[in-house]
Amino acid sequence: MQDSAILLIHSPDRKGLVAAISGFLYAHGANILHADQHQDEELGLFFMRVEWALAGFDLDERAFRAEFPPVAERFEMRWRLEYSARPLRVAIFVSRYQHCLADLLQRYRSGELPCRIPLIVANHPDAQPLAEFYGVPFHHVPVEPGQKTEAERRQIELLESEGVELVILARYMQVLSPSFVACYPERIINVHHSFLPAFSGAKPHHAAFRRGVKLIGATAHYATEVLDEGPIIEQDVARVSHRHDLDDFIRAGRDLEKVVLSRAVRWHLEHRILCYSNKTVVFD
Amino acid sequence: MQDSAILLIHSPDRKGLVAAISGFLYAHGANILHADQHQDEELGLFFMRVEWALAGFDLDERAFRAEFPPVAERFEMRWRLEYSARPLRVAIFVSRYQHCLADLLQRYRSGELPCRIPLIVANHPDAQPLAEFYGVPFHHVPVEPGQKTEAERRQIELLESEGVELVILARYMQVLSPSFVACYPERIINVHHSFLPAFSGAKPHHAAFRRGVKLIGATAHYATEVLDEGPIIEQDVARVSHRHDLDDFIRAGRDLEKVVLSRAVRWHLEHRILCYSNKTVVFD
Amino acid sequence: MQDSAILLIHSPDRKGLVAAISGFLYAHGANILHADQHQDEELGLFFMRVEWALAGFDLDERAFRAEFPPVAERFEMRWRLEYSARPLRVAIFVSRYQHCLADLLQRYRSGELPCRIPLIVANHPDAQPLAEFYGVPFHHVPVEPGQKTEAERRQIELLESEGVELVILARYMQVLSPSFVACYPERIINVHHSFLPAFSGAKPHHAAFRRGVKLIGATAHYATEVLDEGPIIEQDVARVSHRHDLDDFIRAGRDLEKVVLSRAVRWHLEHRILCYSNKTVVFD
Amino acid sequence: MQDSAILLIHSPDRKGLVAAISGFLYAHGANILHADQHQDEELGLFFMRVEWALAGFDLDERAFRAEFPPVAERFEMRWRLEYSARPLRVAIFVSRYQHCLADLLQRYRSGELPCRIPLIVANHPDAQPLAEFYGVPFHHVPVEPGQKTEAERRQIELLESEGVELVILARYMQVLSPSFVACYPERIINVHHSFLPAFSGAKPHHAAFRRGVKLIGATAHYATEVLDEGPIIEQDVARVSHRHDLDDFIRAGRDLEKVVLSRAVRWHLEHRILCYSNKTVVFD
Repeated sequence: MQDSAILLIHSPDRKGLVAAISGFLYAHGANILHADQHQDEELGLFFMRVEWALAGFDLDERAFRAEFPPVAERFEMRWRLEYSARPLRVAIFVSRYQHCLADLLQRYRSGELPCRIPLIVANHPDAQPLAEFYGVPFHHVPVEPGQKTEAERRQIELLESEGVELVILARYMQVLSPSFVACYPERIINVHHSFLPAFSGAKPHHAAFRRGVKLIGATAHYATEVLDEGPIIEQDVARVSHRHDLDDFIRAGRDLEKVVLSRAVRWHLEHRILCYSNKTVVFD
Repeated sequence: MQDSAILLIHSPDRKGLVAAISGFLYAHGANILHADQHQDEELGLFFMRVEWALAGFDLDERAFRAEFPPVAERFEMRWRLEYSARPLRVAIFVSRYQHCLADLLQRYRSGELPCRIPLIVANHPDAQPLAEFYGVPFHHVPVEPGQKTEAERRQIELLESEGVELVILARYMQVLSPSFVACYPERIINVHHSFLPAFSGAKPHHAAFRRGVKLIGATAHYATEVLDEGPIIEQDVARVSHRHDLDDFIRAGRDLEKVVLSRAVRWHLEHRILCYSNKTVVFD
Repeated sequence: MQDSAILLIHSPDRKGLVAAISGFLYAHGANILHADQHQDEELGLFFMRVEWALAGFDLDERAFRAEFPPVAERFEMRWRLEYSARPLRVAIFVSRYQHCLADLLQRYRSGELPCRIPLIVANHPDAQPLAEFYGVPFHHVPVEPGQKTEAERRQIELLESEGVELVILARYMQVLSPSFVACYPERIINVHHSFLPAFSGAKPHHAAFRRGVKLIGATAHYATEVLDEGPIIEQDVARVSHRHDLDDFIRAGRDLEKVVLSRAVRWHLEHRILCYSNKTVVFD
Repeated sequence: MQDSAILLIHSPDRKGLVAAISGFLYAHGANILHADQHQDEELGLFFMRVEWALAGFDLDERAFRAEFPPVAERFEMRWRLEYSARPLRVAIFVSRYQHCLADLLQRYRSGELPCRIPLIVANHPDAQPLAEFYGVPFHHVPVEPGQKTEAERRQIELLESEGVELVILARYMQVLSPSFVACYPERIINVHHSFLPAFSGAKPHHAAFRRGVKLIGATAHYATEVLDEGPIIEQDVARVSHRHDLDDFIRAGRDLEKVVLSRAVRWHLEHRILCYSNKTVVFD
């Protein structure tokens, strides 16, 4: 993997946008590795992700941040610059179920997830051995009834002390407060064990079983103030039938959760996701 | 295809059920072609579908209906006897969209659907040429505002005069009244263009598009008094992304509807479906 | 749908390509509707599809064809210009099985396929009523043993007289000669009823059934000289089990064939496909 | 989970089979929990899996093995009796890639796989820490060129000393000799990283990438003398496009391998699989 820069753009759709951006990059020697764009015709919006090799590019970060704004302002762009050599710092929150955590940690070790994981936060101690095996510091922060504010204060301290840029809720069974969520906008990824918006809230497998659906699902989404209502990043389903009992639903659901969550996390880490109108653009 | 009989059983789960049924059939010379059973452990229920060749079986229908009840009563069975040589009589209801209708009629002609279709009922005249091409009588029954009762009376007359045993709502855009539905319990199959229970009601593709889902679905279910709440027979999904606009959702949805509806209809025609607790057992 | 132009580009990957193309279009007032690009890093190749509204664009076709070549030559581009207002002329070849033909014709009538279909060619007369119902001239060209050359001569005459630009083999059960295929390079779409490269050749469902696979497939591809070896455009699969007999494989296969073939055809008609190295880039 | 017995039957299809088996079980007080059967009409074969609660059943194992043979002989049944309280003893073979191993061990710990795993055998030492974390003895048996016979002798010693009844090849990169395979007929489960029979043999992802397929697959099957030709237990696929490079194929493939292999293993452990004609019946 060569070192690269990634530019993410969100702007009103205008003639000349691509010409301006690609002209700017070309003028500074960028060798474009990937580029993808999207237009929302109805809303008149333009989105772009462009990644280029740093070798041969004549602007360092400081220079880019000085030279690009005039282009951006001309088109009213909101933009973000990322560097592949600067992996995000990630915290994983977990409760008792460890399947998503174990899956993420094994992917992390194998190099599949380009990030640093400086800490795991849990409201139960069960996952400590797993965390230790993978060499990730484990913090047990119990959330006693009526003590959530205090627990969240402690959690945020931990996140801030480690410079965390992304929080993964790997079947963390506590609802975060709006004020916690507001600290990490579009920076908290949750996995819900249903095909949202069906079966939002608690015990979705029980509800799906009762309703007699023929497919069950899982959904990875950014957490927002409203539970299970944030922008959907990825979803998948598995077929079930009358032969499957509730335990089968839960077991099949676990496989969906692992795959759906890990895809969403990888896309976030590779800076492939843009949010708007409570939806995501995923530049895969 | 050899001539066969199909016995569908629904009963409390008891020791000796299978022995009694299979013993009865064996005693009368049945050569079993397919047998499948299901137990709902939680509710203590037993379901069975058994199909046997009529060649060599020593009970005709009248004799079966005289001899089997003592067995059935011993186990408190509810049962149904069907004959493959006696295809169901089916009516298709349609509005303007013709994709499901065209799909069903082509399958019907090719021999894929073991039934007779003596009539198509439509609240718009658009589908008449298609009906004529496939040789099915077409009845235009407009449903004017405030005249639904009268229209349904006319529809039921048509169904009764043709001895219809199954009604297929092939994107029929009118809501049937509870009294209509009550005339055909577990005998009306509807296709809804979403993954129920998500996006029930009107314009599900619009709602799915707004919500930013990554999969869209379709659901075939038996119509009940409560709209979109009946027992689900079949569901399927297709992947969508930010690259798909609303028209793409609708087009992909059409393909799902055709496949999901035709599967549900075929299973019903082959007497593979049992309903309980607002769910289906589909003996595939 | 507004009138648009589509430019397809295939070139060695070079710095400045996107800047040059987008700059050219911007200079002439193009309002870009969709743009997508792809780079094959291993082979150093660049592919692009860009679509723009004609309203406000200051080059008509003749002018574009005069002005763009200097840009193209600088980057050694191969390019193609298409107009949405100029739908392709399509012929459908069919034998006895009519499910793909019926499906394509219904989609055509509903406006889903942006093309003109001036003729259907068949080596059996069975599909004539269907062709007539949809108002498409039907040509019965029997292919007797030893007479294929003569039959193909007749077929090509028909295609040429109607200015056909795309041939769809909708379960046409004859192998076309290399010389026929050479007349329509990347302009003949075939559907094969297996997941290629598995089960190429005759009777793939029989072979799949014998092998005991748990999924069956269908593949749409461009026909080339070597049977079933051309660039794959689309594939899909359906789950099967020991409960499915050969007839079930065939019936499930038909649904796959219809969906896979119609997607491939639509993508071709919308000028979304580029071929290289016996593969396809599908700009969806 | 209550203690249960499982009877698997494979016989010529005959009238009275189900009556005889269910009559026998009923006579001895069996409370049937699950029963499933299958008939291969073409070959005239009958397959059955029946599971009943031991509570209330009046035959212990010795008595069953004395009393059932007369019934079995009357119908020329081959049969197998298993007890849920007697989990199979399983060995996992692995090389360098650890994703399948890590996945199986985590499922094992969580209770999803009803078995004992007394050993892991590896031709590379890499997986030792993972084995130790999950508390499974790890045996490094290098396979040097020309020394396979000796290595296999050592492996079989290990398997025999631990009473192993199932061998899982979790991306074990060595081909087992026919004589090894013959020691464990229908008792070695391999996962191949393609949709067999496509891309059998070495480097299937490379071959799939070169061929330009639109779906990649994975296959779990019983190992037989002929590489990649044994009875298929489970398969699954994932969608790929021109946007996916070879590394993406490999990563998506890993997720398929884990799911497909773990399903096949669980079905085997639950005694749900019967083999015939190089195919499997999977009573799910």
